[in-house]
Amino acid sequence: MKAPFPFSAIVGQEEMKLAMVLTAIDPGIGGVLVFGDRGTGKSTAVRALAALLPPIRQVESCPVNSARLEDCPEWARLTSREIVTRPTPVVDLPLGATEDRVVGALDIERALSQGEKAFEPGLLARANRGYLYIDEVNLLEDHIVDLLLDVAQSGQNVVEREGLSIRHPARFVLVGSGNPEEGELRPQLLDRFGLSVEVGSPKDIPTRIEVIRRRDAYENDHAAFMAKWQEEDTTLRERILAARTRLSAIATPEAALHDCAELCVALGSDGLRGELTLLRTGRAFAAYHGADTLTRDHLREVAPMSLRHRLRRDPLDEAGSGARVGRVIEEVFG
Amino acid sequence: MKAPFPFSAIVGQEEMKLAMVLTAIDPGIGGVLVFGDRGTGKSTAVRALAALLPPIRQVESCPVNSARLEDCPEWARLTSREIVTRPTPVVDLPLGATEDRVVGALDIERALSQGEKAFEPGLLARANRGYLYIDEVNLLEDHIVDLLLDVAQSGQNVVEREGLSIRHPARFVLVGSGNPEEGELRPQLLDRFGLSVEVGSPKDIPTRIEVIRRRDAYENDHAAFMAKWQEEDTTLRERILAARTRLSAIATPEAALHDCAELCVALGSDGLRGELTLLRTGRAFAAYHGADTLTRDHLREVAPMSLRHRLRRDPLDEAGSGARVGRVIEEVFG
Amino acid sequence: MKAPFPFSAIVGQEEMKLAMVLTAIDPGIGGVLVFGDRGTGKSTAVRALAALLPPIRQVESCPVNSARLEDCPEWARLTSREIVTRPTPVVDLPLGATEDRVVGALDIERALSQGEKAFEPGLLARANRGYLYIDEVNLLEDHIVDLLLDVAQSGQNVVEREGLSIRHPARFVLVGSGNPEEGELRPQLLDRFGLSVEVGSPKDIPTRIEVIRRRDAYENDHAAFMAKWQEEDTTLRERILAARTRLSAIATPEAALHDCAELCVALGSDGLRGELTLLRTGRAFAAYHGADTLTRDHLREVAPMSLRHRLRRDPLDEAGSGARVGRVIEEVFG
Amino acid sequence: MKAPFPFSAIVGQEEMKLAMVLTAIDPGIGGVLVFGDRGTGKSTAVRALAALLPPIRQVESCPVNSARLEDCPEWARLTSREIVTRPTPVVDLPLGATEDRVVGALDIERALSQGEKAFEPGLLARANRGYLYIDEVNLLEDHIVDLLLDVAQSGQNVVEREGLSIRHPARFVLVGSGNPEEGELRPQLLDRFGLSVEVGSPKDIPTRIEVIRRRDAYENDHAAFMAKWQEEDTTLRERILAARTRLSAIATPEAALHDCAELCVALGSDGLRGELTLLRTGRAFAAYHGADTLTRDHLREVAPMSLRHRLRRDPLDEAGSGARVGRVIEEVFG
Amino acid sequence: MKAPFPFSAIVGQEEMKLAMVLTAIDPGIGGVLVFGDRGTGKSTAVRALAALLPPIRQVESCPVNSARLEDCPEWARLTSREIVTRPTPVVDLPLGATEDRVVGALDIERALSQGEKAFEPGLLARANRGYLYIDEVNLLEDHIVDLLLDVAQSGQNVVEREGLSIRHPARFVLVGSGNPEEGELRPQLLDRFGLSVEVGSPKDIPTRIEVIRRRDAYENDHAAFMAKWQEEDTTLRERILAARTRLSAIATPEAALHDCAELCVALGSDGLRGELTLLRTGRAFAAYHGADTLTRDHLREVAPMSLRHRLRRDPLDEAGSGARVGRVIEEVFG
Amino acid sequence: MKAPFPFSAIVGQEEMKLAMVLTAIDPGIGGVLVFGDRGTGKSTAVRALAALLPPIRQVESCPVNSARLEDCPEWARLTSREIVTRPTPVVDLPLGATEDRVVGALDIERALSQGEKAFEPGLLARANRGYLYIDEVNLLEDHIVDLLLDVAQSGQNVVEREGLSIRHPARFVLVGSGNPEEGELRPQLLDRFGLSVEVGSPKDIPTRIEVIRRRDAYENDHAAFMAKWQEEDTTLRERILAARTRLSAIATPEAALHDCAELCVALGSDGLRGELTLLRTGRAFAAYHGADTLTRDHLREVAPMSLRHRLRRDPLDEAGSGARVGRVIEEVFG
Repeated sequence: MKAPFPFSAIVGQEEMKLAMVLTAIDPGIGGVLVFGDRGTGKSTAVRALAALLPPIRQVESCPVNSARLEDCPEWARLTSREIVTRPTPVVDLPLGATEDRVVGALDIERALSQGEKAFEPGLLARANRGYLYIDEVNLLEDHIVDLLLDVAQSGQNVVEREGLSIRHPARFVLVGSGNPEEGELRPQLLDRFGLSVEVGSPKDIPTRIEVIRRRDAYENDHAAFMAKWQEEDTTLRERILAARTRLSAIATPEAALHDCAELCVALGSDGLRGELTLLRTGRAFAAYHGADTLTRDHLREVAPMSLRHRLRRDPLDEAGSGARVGRVIEEVFG
Repeated sequence: MKAPFPFSAIVGQEEMKLAMVLTAIDPGIGGVLVFGDRGTGKSTAVRALAALLPPIRQVESCPVNSARLEDCPEWARLTSREIVTRPTPVVDLPLGATEDRVVGALDIERALSQGEKAFEPGLLARANRGYLYIDEVNLLEDHIVDLLLDVAQSGQNVVEREGLSIRHPARFVLVGSGNPEEGELRPQLLDRFGLSVEVGSPKDIPTRIEVIRRRDAYENDHAAFMAKWQEEDTTLRERILAARTRLSAIATPEAALHDCAELCVALGSDGLRGELTLLRTGRAFAAYHGADTLTRDHLREVAPMSLRHRLRRDPLDEAGSGARVGRVIEEVFG
Repeated sequence: MKAPFPFSAIVGQEEMKLAMVLTAIDPGIGGVLVFGDRGTGKSTAVRALAALLPPIRQVESCPVNSARLEDCPEWARLTSREIVTRPTPVVDLPLGATEDRVVGALDIERALSQGEKAFEPGLLARANRGYLYIDEVNLLEDHIVDLLLDVAQSGQNVVEREGLSIRHPARFVLVGSGNPEEGELRPQLLDRFGLSVEVGSPKDIPTRIEVIRRRDAYENDHAAFMAKWQEEDTTLRERILAARTRLSAIATPEAALHDCAELCVALGSDGLRGELTLLRTGRAFAAYHGADTLTRDHLREVAPMSLRHRLRRDPLDEAGSGARVGRVIEEVFG
Repeated sequence: MKAPFPFSAIVGQEEMKLAMVLTAIDPGIGGVLVFGDRGTGKSTAVRALAALLPPIRQVESCPVNSARLEDCPEWARLTSREIVTRPTPVVDLPLGATEDRVVGALDIERALSQGEKAFEPGLLARANRGYLYIDEVNLLEDHIVDLLLDVAQSGQNVVEREGLSIRHPARFVLVGSGNPEEGELRPQLLDRFGLSVEVGSPKDIPTRIEVIRRRDAYENDHAAFMAKWQEEDTTLRERILAARTRLSAIATPEAALHDCAELCVALGSDGLRGELTLLRTGRAFAAYHGADTLTRDHLREVAPMSLRHRLRRDPLDEAGSGARVGRVIEEVFG
Repeated sequence: MKAPFPFSAIVGQEEMKLAMVLTAIDPGIGGVLVFGDRGTGKSTAVRALAALLPPIRQVESCPVNSARLEDCPEWARLTSREIVTRPTPVVDLPLGATEDRVVGALDIERALSQGEKAFEPGLLARANRGYLYIDEVNLLEDHIVDLLLDVAQSGQNVVEREGLSIRHPARFVLVGSGNPEEGELRPQLLDRFGLSVEVGSPKDIPTRIEVIRRRDAYENDHAAFMAKWQEEDTTLRERILAARTRLSAIATPEAALHDCAELCVALGSDGLRGELTLLRTGRAFAAYHGADTLTRDHLREVAPMSLRHRLRRDPLDEAGSGARVGRVIEEVFG
Repeated sequence: MKAPFPFSAIVGQEEMKLAMVLTAIDPGIGGVLVFGDRGTGKSTAVRALAALLPPIRQVESCPVNSARLEDCPEWARLTSREIVTRPTPVVDLPLGATEDRVVGALDIERALSQGEKAFEPGLLARANRGYLYIDEVNLLEDHIVDLLLDVAQSGQNVVEREGLSIRHPARFVLVGSGNPEEGELRPQLLDRFGLSVEVGSPKDIPTRIEVIRRRDAYENDHAAFMAKWQEEDTTLRERILAARTRLSAIATPEAALHDCAELCVALGSDGLRGELTLLRTGRAFAAYHGADTLTRDHLREVAPMSLRHRLRRDPLDEAGSGARVGRVIEEVFG
């Protein structure tokens, strides 16, 4: 398998890249929805992300990638207890995956041959401490999306089935891509994603040539191309690590809380997830930019990705929800 | 797992909190339906409830949380017979749960390996003496809702399947949340819930800031935040325990019966569950407020949550059913 | 389990109570359909019926409640052959019950562990010599209703499946409740029920208060309440037993046959089940009132419940079918 | 089990009774469709038929009721080889019967326990040499009706499944009842039934009284009633037996062939099954009336039941198809 | 089982009989579709065909009827290796047959009892070297029709399932009957049948009488009737055998190729299967008539059956497709 | 089995043949979609392709056709380790194939009999290093098409099911045929195919005669026909092999990148797959024609097949998408 395309070598798509970087700094922001036409490099970006993310240290054979032996689940059969460094997991959820495959299931073979109930961990176990990617999330069945969001939020996967009662950590960031022309997510589900971004094809010739040139070099002059960009990826990775360290020390002035609330009320977003996500994303952004205190400027930058998908559809307003967020930011923040 | 958000720290949503407190005083009131938009803190409230409720004493390994050894079901394998104190159980019914998972089923593994029929208790067993929470109850299949209401009403779960004939106590309060925009419950089922409340997002900025501040403190300054609010939770828990004791002594004057009947006739509510629930909820409210006798004022307070979901839809009356209850209360009680 | 609400303590609903009493006198009348809004006490009445009915004598462990050892089915494993007195069985058919659960099925466990085909009796076996209650019969699948009516009519349950060929007596009265707003039974099925009655909530305040007072006493002053009403229940039970004895001696004059036929022709009821049911129900009513001979007055009383559900729908006649029966009785009987 | 209602005691419904008698004389006529409203005694008539039919002699334990030991299928386990006299079989096909249950299937239990493939005969085996009754045939799945008609026509049931290759005789008359208001059979299937008749409720009071009186006597004065009518049934049975003997000797003049063809052309019936059935039914009718030669008068009597269901629907002709057959008979036969 | 109706005794239906004869001469022509109303003798004709066809010589126990021992598939268990003469197989595909039953499947019993994978051949194996008949082919699922046409065209059945990898010869002529009023085949499938013919009921009285007389004689004077017609069948069979021998020597002048192409272009038939079938069928027809060279007259005779089903539907042309073929033949061939 | 029709002997259909040749030179171009009416020789062409393609060297028993022993998957049971020369695999995906059959599955037999998990490779394993053909790809379920495109793109098949975790190389070219009148592929899927071509029947008589003559010679004068054309196939095969060698040395001037981008922007094709495919296909075309450098003329030739299926449907432009591509090429390239 060839190494994936370098994250830094992706031309444009700045908002999508930023959203991914921010969730790498604070996974608590929640999942990311990426909307866009076919062929705009959504899955390339996710695979690139895998190589960018800081590696983790884990028990080698632990099915949930635990950092310490004592955190491995009791049902795990640990064939190697060594602590090793591994890439941050980025797990692909295939279209049509069953619930069993996602959450894990009874290990039928051991049940039949050895007469004991054993647990066969699923994709959620593998995604612990990493990312779970769903291409075309709008085609997934609602109850699976719901389940994924529940687990992502609680950080725990609980499986109770045929006498098994298993729980294991499952902290991951959900990244879903979707083509808005092919069916929509229920607002109920949309609201439970942290961020949303929109991607598109570049329209100007030079940018397109640059994209082709890089893809072509990646395919046909692989080694040189990778060497050139891995350096940039390394710089970005270190910046993420630094921001993680800084994050808990970011100050949150009263004015910032007020800004969050005022913006959400002005936008008429339902519920309070909007404010909470905006606050959290703003702090990650501040940390990423080396700031000590969350300011209105930080909030302004991340408000569109934090709030765009929480607006009620307004049939009289033909501007997309992204534009509506922008307009209201101008009115509220001046 | 982090401790849940404290019940007392929930900003506003007074009607929902009151309904939960009243069912904690008298579980016989029946289930609670919570209607509201996404993101209004419905599931946060239920998880908060878990920590608020007075603990129970039970046989440690009893699958139905029985208080005494002699009440444990005969099919239970009691690995520990000690009497321990446990939190009141609050069980989550996952979307898409099968009937087997809810009521319990044959333990296939023991049947295959040991050739004997054993019972694998379900979620109803675990919920005994506590709460069963269903998120988005309107998405559940009717026959499961029906089954849950039957069990909740009779206090018994009877399982007859493949030669098993099992019964066990299953006394719990059903709490269902629903978004009225996403499909409705059949009136037949609505009527079998005891109470219903409506929740919404606060519209004023200071309240919203307060909500954000508390959630943020809960996330980022967890220990201090919990210490601050647990005291209030403790006070509330003791008030509930006191009301439980007082409940059976509340006097019910003839006038109160007359008030109940007159109000329901004026509202045109079908059947007689309205009166009975109103009477019972009024007494719990009286006990909560330290009264000796049920008065018209007590009934006035709990009538909306007791009756709102039992009204026939009136297409000519655009006011919601909550407003109609209020208007009729004014007419009847003056 | 608390004793059920006493039958005699039910306020009003005279037609429903009469229909149940008459089928207790002559189970050959056939099933009873109870139509009415939610909350009108339909299932309370059925459970009350269970306590009212005269007990039966049966072989203790016989799965079909046979009176004599020689009537127990050959496939039954009789663990106790003693003759005991038991309450008349009233069996609940749960919503969503499968055909296997209703009619019985192969006992999988014995088939697997002992390699022999054994029969696991179903709900029809348990209902023999008693009542089978179906809440919301209009929600049941047609082929199950059909099967139940076939068995109820023939008094036999025949199971042929996977090499088993089992038959056992299954004489019971089918009681179905339904809300006419939630879907209708096919006329084909309606016609096969013996009687139908309509129930509703009382509209006057004093009656409603009386209902609440009795329910409240039942809940909160259980022992005293039960003692008070069991006496009335006993009187009623004895009157039923007396009527059973008298039934076969009731004379049926030619004029009564003529009245039955003339009424049904005037009503335009399809088929001849109307006349036959009216005749039979009339005789049970005569017996209940201590008469020797069936008269036009007896027929007049039971004609509505015997014929109401056999009328073709008349789109030009807005009066309900109950009113149409009444009007035609006036025209024919004067 | 009470003896069924006597065939001779059925009031009216002459055409239906005649169709059944004629198929008892010549089963080769093919199946009978009985159309009519609910409650018109269709299934009573079929059950009455069972008692009327001449008994057969058969090997006691033969699953297909063979007359001679050498005709029993090789896969049959004959536990008793005695020749006994049995009632002509009348088998009921239950609504919702699976194909396996109808045609027979692998005997799973013997396959599992003894490791050998054995055949579990189905309803078609039991119906051999008799009648197969389907209530509400229009509700049966098309492929089952098709299969039944195929077997009925070929007189053989061929089962090929999971390595089994079984064939056994399955000669029977298919009797299907249907309510034309509840869905129709495809013309393709209609045409494959031999005869069709229509039944209805009597409209005059004296006839209805007679029906009630007889049903009532059957229920309440059973022994006397049966004794009275069994004599008539016996006379009819002997007349059928005599007609069977006479059948092969009935002469078929050229004019009769011409009458059959001319009538069918005039009616515009598709295909040639009309003529063939009319001819055959005419001869059975002639035999039943003791004639030697088939005449136009015989054909006139049985033409409606032979042809009515083979007419194309004529949307401009509001008369039912029965009336259209009658009118054309008048035009053609004069 | 009675011998089937003789092919020669079928009255009229000349085109259908010719199509069957031509495929008996050259099975490579491909399948035959027979369209027509119910009751027009389609299945009688197919069963008659079975008796007409020249017998084949084959290894007695070979599941695919191979002529020589070395051609029997390796998975076959040959219990008798004798070479015997058998009727050409004519296999019926029952409505609702599963793919397993058609193509063959794993022999479950041997898999379970002997732990080895064995192949249970299906209907395609039995049809090798013969005919496969599908009644109402338009009711079959598309993917089964597709599979049948694939196998018929390639002459091989390939089964890959659960670790089995089996192939066996399956050369047969597919004969499908259909009623055009009951749903249509997709044009994609129509085109893959070689020939199509239309059948109907005779409209004149003498022909109808002749049909009835023959059917009646077949039923009631079987032996004499069969003797009379078997001679004609034998003559026809020998003529088919002679044509088979002659077939490969038929000359195909350039003009005939030109005629085929010109006719198909004029008809606007899609693709090139039309020409190829016309050419091949013309040669079989020439051989049947003892000719040495394919002429325009031969093509004219078989063009309708070769091309009729390949025309695009023309909504402005009310004539059936048969008439359109005829008209174009006149224009092109003069 | 007869040898397939020679690729070189296919009359016309130049674009389809070119597309297949180019993917044989560079399989990285991606799949080919062939659109056209029935009977236009689509599947003949694919089967012809199988014989044209250069053979591969592989380990004899390797289930994924690996070239070297060390590349065979570890789960493979290698019964023969010899290196042999085999035709390039061309695998047919049957309509209705299940996901298990495509990707491989647990070998149930070995699991049951030997108690071990073994992998039963599917069609994807067999297609490695070759072609996978799907007739009527528009009738396949979306999730299967999606899966196939995923595997084709990544070159790896990953199977995770019931405790198995298997991966094996699966590099193949997907060839799908479809009839645009029978349902369409989602644009999402269309875009992931590399090339698309359209085929049709020839309209002039001489070409049609030539087609018939060649097919007829193939059928009836097989040996001579094959000998004649195999020489041309060999020449073509060698030209493909030479082009493969030359491919990596083709120079890509900046102007060519500019041409690709400008053309795609002018066409308004979504995403960037258009440019990348056009570039790659152009280079394969240059290599096929013995060039050293990619020129505008090369791009012009392959642009229609590379871009036609990526255009948005334009309801105002009645010209097909092929014509639109041609028109824009003229505008952009002059």
